Amino acid sequence: MEASDLLGQHPTIRSDEQLQRQLAFLVEIDKLKQIVRQTPLIDGSRKENDAEHSWHLALMAIVLSDYAAEPVDILRVLKMVLIHDLVEIDAGDTFCYDPIALRDKAQREERAAERIFGLLPPDQGSHLRSLWQEFEARSSADARFADALDRFQAMLHNYLTKGGTWREHSVSSDVVLQRETLIREGSPKLWALAQGLLQDAVNRGFLTRSD
Amino acid sequence: MEASDLLGQHPTIRSDEQLQRQLAFLVEIDKLKQIVRQTPLIDGSRKENDAEHSWHLALMAIVLSDYAAEPVDILRVLKMVLIHDLVEIDAGDTFCYDPIALRDKAQREERAAERIFGLLPPDQGSHLRSLWQEFEARSSADARFADALDRFQAMLHNYLTKGGTWREHSVSSDVVLQRETLIREGSPKLWALAQGLLQDAVNRGFLTRSD
Repeated sequence: MEASDLLGQHPTIRSDEQLQRQLAFLVEIDKLKQIVRQTPLIDGSRKENDAEHSWHLALMAIVLSDYAAEPVDILRVLKMVLIHDLVEIDAGDTFCYDPIALRDKAQREERAAERIFGLLPPDQGSHLRSLWQEFEARSSADARFADALDRFQAMLHNYLTKGGTWREHSVSSDVVLQRETLIREGSPKLWALAQGLLQDAVNRGFLTRSD
Repeated sequence: MEASDLLGQHPTIRSDEQLQRQLAFLVEIDKLKQIVRQTPLIDGSRKENDAEHSWHLALMAIVLSDYAAEPVDILRVLKMVLIHDLVEIDAGDTFCYDPIALRDKAQREERAAERIFGLLPPDQGSHLRSLWQEFEARSSADARFADALDRFQAMLHNYLTKGGTWREHSVSSDVVLQRETLIREGSPKLWALAQGLLQDAVNRGFLTRSD
């Protein structure tokens, strides 16, 4: 019997649609722990998964919130980083330097959002889905800060593993710089730091200077 | 060169003690992704780690907050569940049904808290350390709800994997029930559900009835 059936059959849950939907969502999202990203752990031993990555961003949001470009609502930022990758349960991790996979990313992720947030009671599902859309669109100070953390974290892991994904996929410095430049809109302080680290990565040979 | 040395040497970071401490903490806590718990993933494919477990609790806090025994401050609950296992970077995962390991657990974890939260700038370190102590002591409505989620999540994973840790370590129903009864203080609703699931686990043979 599937896990979801076990719960669905239980009388306490069957009689309570709200609880049933909430548990179905909470069971479904366990799958995020198996969606592997391109980014390595800092010790380089393996690649990280979306769930632990989201946890790391949440801690970064708590610790680095003073560096947001504009005042942010930390609770909204936390919710955004905690849910921002849920769509990858269906859509998979799209490597940010893969132009072909990026073409239909938005469409695949919108479908995933509809299904996954749709498991929740409607009010909770709409709330989280709209936070996810705000994050994707970078349409608020909260979203731009959350997005900056997402970009900064991957860059930090690549720097600290002496090239990580950059080296593995032969990504050159101008391509990385172009991607990371959006950090500035969410956090000028982290952007200054990112620039310094990227320059250092080039100097140390972790990242190839573009021709 | 170690990751921490790479950052420590960088001029932008060397000249900014606050930033240096924050990054040292954020790099250190990456290790939580390698602390493996006893609890399996819901599909049973492997055991989960503390970082992804903490992420899962954060989503549970967001989705199930209406079921807290008393009104809770969701931001404080989120911070608690996000940091509650950080001490295990030094102290390791103490299996909750191991009486010998439990004896010096508090002492080992206090030392770990001192070191790990001590990496942060003093104001942030004190804030997070005191939230961790509040969680451990279950001394507020926020802490009791966070603790209830922690207990409930492990129980749910064991139930959905048809016995999980209970079966692996031959833990019987009265021992589990004694541990889970504290869920009631954080969430009567989740306690009612936990009781139902535990009874069902016994009926289905996932959990051995005590003699």
